[in-house]
Amino acid sequence: MGAPANFLQYVDNNADSFIKRLGEAVKIQSISSDARRRQETIAMGLWLNDQLTQLGVTTKLEDLGTHVMQGQTLQLPYAIIGKLGEDPKKKTVLIYGHYDVQPALKSDGWATEPFELVVDNEKNRLIGRGSTDDKGPIMGWLNVIQAHKELGLDLPVNLRFCFEGMEENGSEGLDECVIAEVAKGKDGYFGGVDCVCISDNYWLNTRTPALTYGLRGIAYFAINVSGPGQDLHSGLFGRMVHEPMTDLIKLMSKLVDHDGTILIPGIDEMVPPADEEELKLYTKMDYSTADVEESAGASIALSDHKETVIMGRMRNPSLSLHGIQGAFSDVGCKTVIPSKVAGKFSLRLVPPQTPEAVIPLVKAYIESEFAKLNSKNKMNVEYLHGGKPWVADVKHWNFEAAKKAIESIWKKSPDYTREGGSIPVTLTFAESLGVNVLLLPMGRADDGAHSTNEKLDRSNFIEGTKVLGTYLYEVAVAA
Amino acid sequence: MGAPANFLQYVDNNADSFIKRLGEAVKIQSISSDARRRQETIAMGLWLNDQLTQLGVTTKLEDLGTHVMQGQTLQLPYAIIGKLGEDPKKKTVLIYGHYDVQPALKSDGWATEPFELVVDNEKNRLIGRGSTDDKGPIMGWLNVIQAHKELGLDLPVNLRFCFEGMEENGSEGLDECVIAEVAKGKDGYFGGVDCVCISDNYWLNTRTPALTYGLRGIAYFAINVSGPGQDLHSGLFGRMVHEPMTDLIKLMSKLVDHDGTILIPGIDEMVPPADEEELKLYTKMDYSTADVEESAGASIALSDHKETVIMGRMRNPSLSLHGIQGAFSDVGCKTVIPSKVAGKFSLRLVPPQTPEAVIPLVKAYIESEFAKLNSKNKMNVEYLHGGKPWVADVKHWNFEAAKKAIESIWKKSPDYTREGGSIPVTLTFAESLGVNVLLLPMGRADDGAHSTNEKLDRSNFIEGTKVLGTYLYEVAVAA
Ligand SMILES: [Zn+2]
Ligand SMILES: [Zn+2]
Ligand SMILES: [Zn+2]
Ligand SMILES: [Zn+2]
Repeated sequence: MGAPANFLQYVDNNADSFIKRLGEAVKIQSISSDARRRQETIAMGLWLNDQLTQLGVTTKLEDLGTHVMQGQTLQLPYAIIGKLGEDPKKKTVLIYGHYDVQPALKSDGWATEPFELVVDNEKNRLIGRGSTDDKGPIMGWLNVIQAHKELGLDLPVNLRFCFEGMEENGSEGLDECVIAEVAKGKDGYFGGVDCVCISDNYWLNTRTPALTYGLRGIAYFAINVSGPGQDLHSGLFGRMVHEPMTDLIKLMSKLVDHDGTILIPGIDEMVPPADEEELKLYTKMDYSTADVEESAGASIALSDHKETVIMGRMRNPSLSLHGIQGAFSDVGCKTVIPSKVAGKFSLRLVPPQTPEAVIPLVKAYIESEFAKLNSKNKMNVEYLHGGKPWVADVKHWNFEAAKKAIESIWKKSPDYTREGGSIPVTLTFAESLGVNVLLLPMGRADDGAHSTNEKLDRSNFIEGTKVLGTYLYEVAVAA
Repeated sequence: MGAPANFLQYVDNNADSFIKRLGEAVKIQSISSDARRRQETIAMGLWLNDQLTQLGVTTKLEDLGTHVMQGQTLQLPYAIIGKLGEDPKKKTVLIYGHYDVQPALKSDGWATEPFELVVDNEKNRLIGRGSTDDKGPIMGWLNVIQAHKELGLDLPVNLRFCFEGMEENGSEGLDECVIAEVAKGKDGYFGGVDCVCISDNYWLNTRTPALTYGLRGIAYFAINVSGPGQDLHSGLFGRMVHEPMTDLIKLMSKLVDHDGTILIPGIDEMVPPADEEELKLYTKMDYSTADVEESAGASIALSDHKETVIMGRMRNPSLSLHGIQGAFSDVGCKTVIPSKVAGKFSLRLVPPQTPEAVIPLVKAYIESEFAKLNSKNKMNVEYLHGGKPWVADVKHWNFEAAKKAIESIWKKSPDYTREGGSIPVTLTFAESLGVNVLLLPMGRADDGAHSTNEKLDRSNFIEGTKVLGTYLYEVAVAA
């Protein structure tokens, strides 16, 4: 049972207005990790809530309270909990998405203004921060609901919604909110949910749609080193004082080897090696090292063996050095000794790793390395946020329904993938609801989520909207 | 022969208007290393030229041509060459200063707007970018000339001027300009110059005025590492690709040891160790490790031995890591793999080191360390700018005159110091004119040049102006 033809037709006919709505969403700079953008992040939630209620969704704005960030006490962006349909004969699908985005500045290297959605008609791409992560997928669901409303079609399932505005900053407060809502049972919005669908990730390549059954967790850290009372002149103070940058760079250099091996004792060792059967999975995937190099835009794969490369993303932990706060970062030649620097890095985690398990290893190791430096500077390791990894059962009807929807729209069978990224709430849904959770990616591997020139292919937005709608019809008839 | 009493009185009476003029100078954001501020840097030169001509100085604006910076071809700020007085019976003193400044943003940690001169009446400080480096000293000379003009006093010497706007960015074009002017002999502005006075440095501590007879040179580098075609998401690409930050941090960690030892083979080895006699010099200085720790604002001296610390600044090379361009440097938790990063560092050089001598050692070492990483990323070492070190004869009458001026105003004998900083044109004056060059510092060790909350004590500005004037009278009668 595919979706009705008039639904599919409606999506094609209204593509331009769908793109226009995505543009309105992109324009709102909902950067959850930047205190200066907190009001805009909250405003983005209110805008989305308006859109939902206009389409007939019953919503409530969950006040998640406050938190302290960058030295300020800030209101958390609302979680939007919603429902549409209460037919006890229908299945109930819970949809998740996040309306916050990663930071972006034109000066980071964007070819266009990051918060203006630019339609590149030559490459058929929609370019802008949040286009693929995760405003495009959320707009995809609005498209589906609008089509049914305008056409007077009944949705084949009951829908439940959970949209948050803190995903890019540790999903603060969301777990408690979800767990509390689930605890209300039939009296809550999440009573009777049969399965969960999350669209917040990407295909494995640029050719083949994917269904994702695993996610890495994350643990994000800062190494804070401080010394002088203020920044110093390197001519006046060079070789007189312990320089925080010298210490920080030494510590950061001890975290990961050039081949990706994590140098913090006990981290890599937590993960059992792949057996013969698991190795075969990776050999079979529609994937080559050329794919990673195409997505990355350069021939920089860590290995020539596709299995090694793909396992690096799907089933191994990783450690990336993101940058340094407080050091000279501009163009030019400033001869400064920065007084206070914070080295940012994160670990991606796989089962059985958890943030709780790795935090003490990370702290103990960096502290022991710092002790070796005999520095008079001050150092501390700060755990900033994190989430556990997750793996699901791909034989469940939820995955079957999504597979059929993909085959119906894209005329291709999906890759079954585990993802390198982290969406911590996935695990919370799985554990608190006790139902199957599915990741149904809208974008492609080369979308550049979290980087410059983020884009969503026009076809992924429009055909992707059709997949979401069709998926609901397949769920309705699934065993 | 001190300065006339009415000159000294005039300086006291006009202190507020002198501070007001310094405020006008600070307001102009003449950041020579930032292409976006180039027009303002040029405007600062024109403002200074106006001030000089209004005081009767004959000037010419030297067009130094263009250079390429940050991908743009930019006009260089003018060098201002000037003269005041042509009496063949008087000595002729050449004054140097620079009207450009280091970058500064309030968000770097300034308590006040960096480009607004704030008068802190509690601590008697003038706070603002350029207050001590080097707009304060230049204004000091304007104060001296104004006093003589208004009082109808003849200056005791002929004055010559050389003010530049690229000191903080390698003094591009200035050497050629000075050498060409000197080559004109008596027909040029620099014909008949008997000595040079530069005020662009600081006392050794906060108590005792200093005369400076040596300067370290500098060689400023960037290590450029690039890999991916654009920034990548660490969840999607972590442990699949060679990350530029991993390589860069490894390379930066190989440059300097935590105790200040330079790890690039051959650099420290170029400098002969201090003999008994030289060591005694450092033991005698009015200086303790407590001084460096007071100036630095924390107990972070590299050693408990004052001689080791002071030699680290005066007679040893140093290497400082300034920061990374292109990596995540903001607050928050961006999970990015930066595609293109530039690690900035500089070496301070002492005789017999020169940029030309160290550049090949630096490049060869970093290239050999990069080769060990087996990375598919691209790396190159870029030499950005530099200057040779310099040492002068302290027994010359120029130094004697300055010593008497200091004793007359401050009632204290100066420390004779070698400086850790670099003013490349010092050596050019010494070599091309063949006369004695003197550094007569206006500010104190804790002024925070090149750092946040740069200040000049009010007394150093006002008494410092008196020292400059008195120095001219002492030069006039010197043997
Ligand atoms: Zn996302
Ligand atoms: Zn994201
Ligand atoms: Zn200076
Ligand atoms: Zn300077």
